[in-house]
Amino acid sequence: MNDPVTSALNCDNLIRMALAEDITSEDVSTNAVIRTYVRGKVQLICKQDGVICGLPVFERTFKLLDEKTAVTFFAADGDEVKSGQLLGEVEGDIRVLLSGERTALNFLQRMSGIATYTRSVAALLKGSKTRLLDTRKTTPNMRIFEKYAVRVGGGYNHRYNLSDGILLKDNHIGAAGSIERAVMLAREYAPFVRKIEVEVENLDMCRRAVEAGADIIMLDNMTPEQMKEAVALIGGRAVTECSGNVTKENIARIIDTGVDFVSSGALTHSAPILDLSLKNLHPVEET
Amino acid sequence: MNDPVTSALNCDNLIRMALAEDITSEDVSTNAVIRTYVRGKVQLICKQDGVICGLPVFERTFKLLDEKTAVTFFAADGDEVKSGQLLGEVEGDIRVLLSGERTALNFLQRMSGIATYTRSVAALLKGSKTRLLDTRKTTPNMRIFEKYAVRVGGGYNHRYNLSDGILLKDNHIGAAGSIERAVMLAREYAPFVRKIEVEVENLDMCRRAVEAGADIIMLDNMTPEQMKEAVALIGGRAVTECSGNVTKENIARIIDTGVDFVSSGALTHSAPILDLSLKNLHPVEET
Amino acid sequence: MNDPVTSALNCDNLIRMALAEDITSEDVSTNAVIRTYVRGKVQLICKQDGVICGLPVFERTFKLLDEKTAVTFFAADGDEVKSGQLLGEVEGDIRVLLSGERTALNFLQRMSGIATYTRSVAALLKGSKTRLLDTRKTTPNMRIFEKYAVRVGGGYNHRYNLSDGILLKDNHIGAAGSIERAVMLAREYAPFVRKIEVEVENLDMCRRAVEAGADIIMLDNMTPEQMKEAVALIGGRAVTECSGNVTKENIARIIDTGVDFVSSGALTHSAPILDLSLKNLHPVEET
Amino acid sequence: MNDPVTSALNCDNLIRMALAEDITSEDVSTNAVIRTYVRGKVQLICKQDGVICGLPVFERTFKLLDEKTAVTFFAADGDEVKSGQLLGEVEGDIRVLLSGERTALNFLQRMSGIATYTRSVAALLKGSKTRLLDTRKTTPNMRIFEKYAVRVGGGYNHRYNLSDGILLKDNHIGAAGSIERAVMLAREYAPFVRKIEVEVENLDMCRRAVEAGADIIMLDNMTPEQMKEAVALIGGRAVTECSGNVTKENIARIIDTGVDFVSSGALTHSAPILDLSLKNLHPVEET
Amino acid sequence: MNDPVTSALNCDNLIRMALAEDITSEDVSTNAVIRTYVRGKVQLICKQDGVICGLPVFERTFKLLDEKTAVTFFAADGDEVKSGQLLGEVEGDIRVLLSGERTALNFLQRMSGIATYTRSVAALLKGSKTRLLDTRKTTPNMRIFEKYAVRVGGGYNHRYNLSDGILLKDNHIGAAGSIERAVMLAREYAPFVRKIEVEVENLDMCRRAVEAGADIIMLDNMTPEQMKEAVALIGGRAVTECSGNVTKENIARIIDTGVDFVSSGALTHSAPILDLSLKNLHPVEET
Amino acid sequence: MNDPVTSALNCDNLIRMALAEDITSEDVSTNAVIRTYVRGKVQLICKQDGVICGLPVFERTFKLLDEKTAVTFFAADGDEVKSGQLLGEVEGDIRVLLSGERTALNFLQRMSGIATYTRSVAALLKGSKTRLLDTRKTTPNMRIFEKYAVRVGGGYNHRYNLSDGILLKDNHIGAAGSIERAVMLAREYAPFVRKIEVEVENLDMCRRAVEAGADIIMLDNMTPEQMKEAVALIGGRAVTECSGNVTKENIARIIDTGVDFVSSGALTHSAPILDLSLKNLHPVEET
Repeated sequence: MNDPVTSALNCDNLIRMALAEDITSEDVSTNAVIRTYVRGKVQLICKQDGVICGLPVFERTFKLLDEKTAVTFFAADGDEVKSGQLLGEVEGDIRVLLSGERTALNFLQRMSGIATYTRSVAALLKGSKTRLLDTRKTTPNMRIFEKYAVRVGGGYNHRYNLSDGILLKDNHIGAAGSIERAVMLAREYAPFVRKIEVEVENLDMCRRAVEAGADIIMLDNMTPEQMKEAVALIGGRAVTECSGNVTKENIARIIDTGVDFVSSGALTHSAPILDLSLKNLHPVEET
Repeated sequence: MNDPVTSALNCDNLIRMALAEDITSEDVSTNAVIRTYVRGKVQLICKQDGVICGLPVFERTFKLLDEKTAVTFFAADGDEVKSGQLLGEVEGDIRVLLSGERTALNFLQRMSGIATYTRSVAALLKGSKTRLLDTRKTTPNMRIFEKYAVRVGGGYNHRYNLSDGILLKDNHIGAAGSIERAVMLAREYAPFVRKIEVEVENLDMCRRAVEAGADIIMLDNMTPEQMKEAVALIGGRAVTECSGNVTKENIARIIDTGVDFVSSGALTHSAPILDLSLKNLHPVEET
Repeated sequence: MNDPVTSALNCDNLIRMALAEDITSEDVSTNAVIRTYVRGKVQLICKQDGVICGLPVFERTFKLLDEKTAVTFFAADGDEVKSGQLLGEVEGDIRVLLSGERTALNFLQRMSGIATYTRSVAALLKGSKTRLLDTRKTTPNMRIFEKYAVRVGGGYNHRYNLSDGILLKDNHIGAAGSIERAVMLAREYAPFVRKIEVEVENLDMCRRAVEAGADIIMLDNMTPEQMKEAVALIGGRAVTECSGNVTKENIARIIDTGVDFVSSGALTHSAPILDLSLKNLHPVEET
Repeated sequence: MNDPVTSALNCDNLIRMALAEDITSEDVSTNAVIRTYVRGKVQLICKQDGVICGLPVFERTFKLLDEKTAVTFFAADGDEVKSGQLLGEVEGDIRVLLSGERTALNFLQRMSGIATYTRSVAALLKGSKTRLLDTRKTTPNMRIFEKYAVRVGGGYNHRYNLSDGILLKDNHIGAAGSIERAVMLAREYAPFVRKIEVEVENLDMCRRAVEAGADIIMLDNMTPEQMKEAVALIGGRAVTECSGNVTKENIARIIDTGVDFVSSGALTHSAPILDLSLKNLHPVEET
Repeated sequence: MNDPVTSALNCDNLIRMALAEDITSEDVSTNAVIRTYVRGKVQLICKQDGVICGLPVFERTFKLLDEKTAVTFFAADGDEVKSGQLLGEVEGDIRVLLSGERTALNFLQRMSGIATYTRSVAALLKGSKTRLLDTRKTTPNMRIFEKYAVRVGGGYNHRYNLSDGILLKDNHIGAAGSIERAVMLAREYAPFVRKIEVEVENLDMCRRAVEAGADIIMLDNMTPEQMKEAVALIGGRAVTECSGNVTKENIARIIDTGVDFVSSGALTHSAPILDLSLKNLHPVEET
Repeated sequence: MNDPVTSALNCDNLIRMALAEDITSEDVSTNAVIRTYVRGKVQLICKQDGVICGLPVFERTFKLLDEKTAVTFFAADGDEVKSGQLLGEVEGDIRVLLSGERTALNFLQRMSGIATYTRSVAALLKGSKTRLLDTRKTTPNMRIFEKYAVRVGGGYNHRYNLSDGILLKDNHIGAAGSIERAVMLAREYAPFVRKIEVEVENLDMCRRAVEAGADIIMLDNMTPEQMKEAVALIGGRAVTECSGNVTKENIARIIDTGVDFVSSGALTHSAPILDLSLKNLHPVEET
């Protein structure tokens, strides 16, 4: 996201599509009143306290419309920002500023909302050894942006998608016949670079998964007490993850269980946006 | 969405991209344990009360992976559904059911979340003449799905994008020099099929906009009292819209103002998802 | 078209596709005789009197091949140009000038042909209140260019496509059961930003459409006398459009009918091109 | 076009884009009045005498929206058709019939227009040995359709694009230094599968091109007398083509010159459309 | 590849592009001599002993041209096949058989070549504990096909790409400052689902990498003796991989070193194809 | 390839796809250890004697990631290079150098491998009149690169694809009924710009093809003696090509046959790569 490679290969296309979704032929309002090039500047203002995230995406949105647009920031991804704070300025063809505004903000508000929510949840884990993970419950075609926002907010990424991590759930285990056979088939299919995670629902499954050689055990929908027992049983032989409708409201119960990671779909699927706006558009002299 | 034309032209591609975002090479877990075709069936279960929305998208997700997948629904978009309710069944190649599950649910949960939230907000307007509108504050590359979800939830759509509606905001008015000139330029540029909406911040602007011939007046960030005055001043000469951080919590104050429409970005940018899941995957006989 | 936003989002891709249609691997003739970079300049010459249109597209065609190409114009879109007139110069890698020539001219000639034809038709309406509209009878994948050319020629744009305007034709009315019900369904489906146009074939339909609240009445294939009666009947309660095989040859009969707009498919589907060419290619010193 | 391979690889994508150009979100009018599947049938009627062309494209347009649409034709590409003639029927979801109508007709009308114009020009060459060729002066992104229409109309195709034929024009010759060197460079670069055509403006160039071994000589903007001389000079050692603003009005002068081919850009850039329409939409029983 | 999900999402598009690379407008030879639908059948014959691989891709190539094409196989991916053996039959529109032949064979021959070569190399490791890995030295845009072919040939896949595995090479270590810091940074950045592999060139680096907690140690360009020492030093604390221009000719020296995996770029970048052909095309009765 | 037109229209897209194949989200290893912009330089070193080919593609790979990357070459396509030779330097953001390395080398190694192999085969034809041709047996989606590499290696290109050359094989002849009719149909279908090649298996077919007017005769799988007879029989009336599993090992037997061209699929389908690498990455001062 904030490196040129990811941006060029995996963000630009999605930003361009989002712009085209908002401008299928032309920006009629803008073209009606502004018929030629006029240079202007506009300010990016924070309207709510939170964690800013997505500034490189905000910038690319305008650059993809017109690479001569100049964007200056007074904050960086991950900064805590305050309502009223001036975060940056965009300068260029006024038509570009007006036509790109909504799309740029739609990205920035959502990413900042996720970073803000993630940081507030991660704060609840302070003092414990448990770290916060995201899930694959992301908005369709927004994963690259949302997983980055989780990291900026202080969370960590679970696997990116179905191709880069092995997670054997009940259905995989059922299809294989047993935990042992599922783990064995996975190891045979992809013996080298993949960790094998197994989702377990009780202590017996947990024990079998560890003994079958699972690298990670996901404790699914267990009570804090069960989790503690599971962590003890595993005894460091595998990394542990707990999951199951974890939200800001209920995460406290996990702190003392000793699990290594807790994953929360809510980070990406239910975080409200952070309110931001572009203000004070005004013409400027050509530089 | 639920007509073949929109689906073929404007949804399939986005669904396919979302699937490819989740499966950049192959579903390693599934392919490791299931090496050949096995027929199975899985149930779509509701885990939270709400309004279901996006069933045709859920179905297309599986069909795009394998058109021979059979999907049956026991509910329809717009139905109020209850936690625990069986909403449908998907039958086909188990690998397709497993690999498509997350993407199908990611669409369905988000669309249902928006429909559920919209209906609850719209309910607060019952008894008034005011109707609920969405905005362009949608998730990038999700607008076609989110605007549909608003309609299913009982809201109405504002313009779809910058190309199909004219909305003259402060910056357009500033660029034109005056409200009168902005409206005149817009009418000259697009005299035929476009309504002209003008955003106003006070009664004087409101009066000038109406007299300039605006079709719609957006009352931006006005108090309820100001809105009532504005509605009286307009006197039916233009449609009225009020906007400005409208949420479930604060919408009641609008009911008595007499505005025709109230728009809320929160419908699409901050609705939490509706929890749904696929359960009870089991092999079935070939039919 | 002549703003950076429309160009970046909705023109560049079509121009690039047109270039690739003409160069599926390489320009064999050029690459055979010119093996390395040689700087050259070529002139854009008008070969027929008319209205020039599409210069920004002409320029983008070369820039998309090589952004270092320099294009200078001595005329602007909408200018009346004369046979023999020098309209511009293109300077850069001679291979780029040769390989892009045909595609650049194919766009420019067609757009200029439409602008020229439109202006000649619009001239026939001088003195009347009636304005000239285009239709959706455009060349597939050329609409963005052709609708712009109509505006440059002095016409106005009807709806851009099926998504941004409501036009209830006989088949929609038949499906709804009556004009009244069709208008009601349309208003219910899209109450806010869309004008509702109804196509009518006789005075009775016309009266019913107006009374149902149609914003625009399309008088389809009526005689001038019928149109006059219809305009009188409507009495300003709706905007009026007349349509039906309107061409340069037969448009005069409409002038006195008092209709607000006349639409003509011929503007885009049957305008002959304006002849233009690139001449006098010669090497130049590197600057 | 009428073979499955060309259609799948090189037409479907362009048809789908044309549909999406006309339906960027949904067909609002249709969806407003028809909320569910209703089966219907509509007739394709000819409104002008001419040559029909593009029926497979017309059919694909509807099939790409809904593959269950059934299309029946009572004529075939290349048939001479009369005003009022029933050419075919389309049966399926009424929403598909309404939403696809304009795009299907836009293709069919333009292709039929080209076939009609081409046949009328080719008729003027009857009795001579000269055959009619098209050029690369096609509408951007329509070449596959337009070159096919020329063949259906009785013309022949010049090279498809810059990659599949060598044509050395004045600028190539200038860059090479001489006709002889240009031909030599072309033969060296592509010695095997490509014919080499050289554009000449006078008899001396003509003689040099033939002696250099050109396979085809293009006589550019010569008078009929010059052409006769050139044909005599060439004496069968190369194929001959004449070009230069050839239209229906002025082609007669070429008949007696003995040139093998005459090329005309007007076939594709200035043919008016053939008027066609869809009529009599009515509901039908499910079959 | 042989599951519907991978095929739909990650193969079809590349196959379609390969077909379009070979047919940019139409198959002129075929369309010249076969003007209408004729049903035919053709045989897939092996012309060289080897391992067949890519049959599902071969089949999709024809299906993407015409889904009604019927393909029957008498062998399956991974089978050892003999020169002269009948491997399958393709039946359908003769134009589809002719136009798709080369592209279908280009995929099949290359994939079978890789599977054949891989199997022969893997055979040299029989009896040792060492398993054979591929690399990222694949043909651009062919990775999904080539990595599958390696598996079919009896090899295993290293990471798929730069996004799904961490491999810290000398340059990463240099940028980080030390092996220890590089491993620490990687663990901090991606603590959960990724194994960390470190490339080492000598025993000291090897020891430091293991102690820093690397999951996999890549022994780069070491002699067999060094490798034995390294394996002993690691003592099972990490998985071992050896690499460095491994080919069929020199792999024997690795057998006794005790490394877990040996990776070879030659599997994908230098395997010769397996010769295959389509023969005996003949018309058949419609079924 | 080394002209801007081919590069922009037909290479960039394939290079970008190859990069995205290798980086589906981000380069995790690089981003983990290098969190901000650091300028660096790396050397392109030859590790094997051969012919270098693909330097412009190598350069574009880095430029497409970051256009500010600077690439300098000390050799040019077609040069004979030696193991150990410094071929060029790449300077820019170290993350770009690391992330683009593998894709850039994958292109360069394969193209150089083909050029090297082609030159060695062409050398065996020195002294004869016979020239070396490639075939359509290229790697899917690599044809533009591979056909260029053949030319750089001293070979010539056969037709590019099925759309730009006519080659009547046994199946076409069978479908037409006879050689004479096949040639006649081809000439009728495409009389102007296409040479007609006919594949013959014996002297009788050869004679009939020549007399039917074929421009090129492909002598398929004939013995050297048969080829000599065929060449004598043709007597210069058509160009001759011989084909049939021609490799470096068996090409000598063709030299004395007098055929004009010999085509070899092995040039593109079985050439091993040329070994190249990027070495000595080090930080540099900002310039």
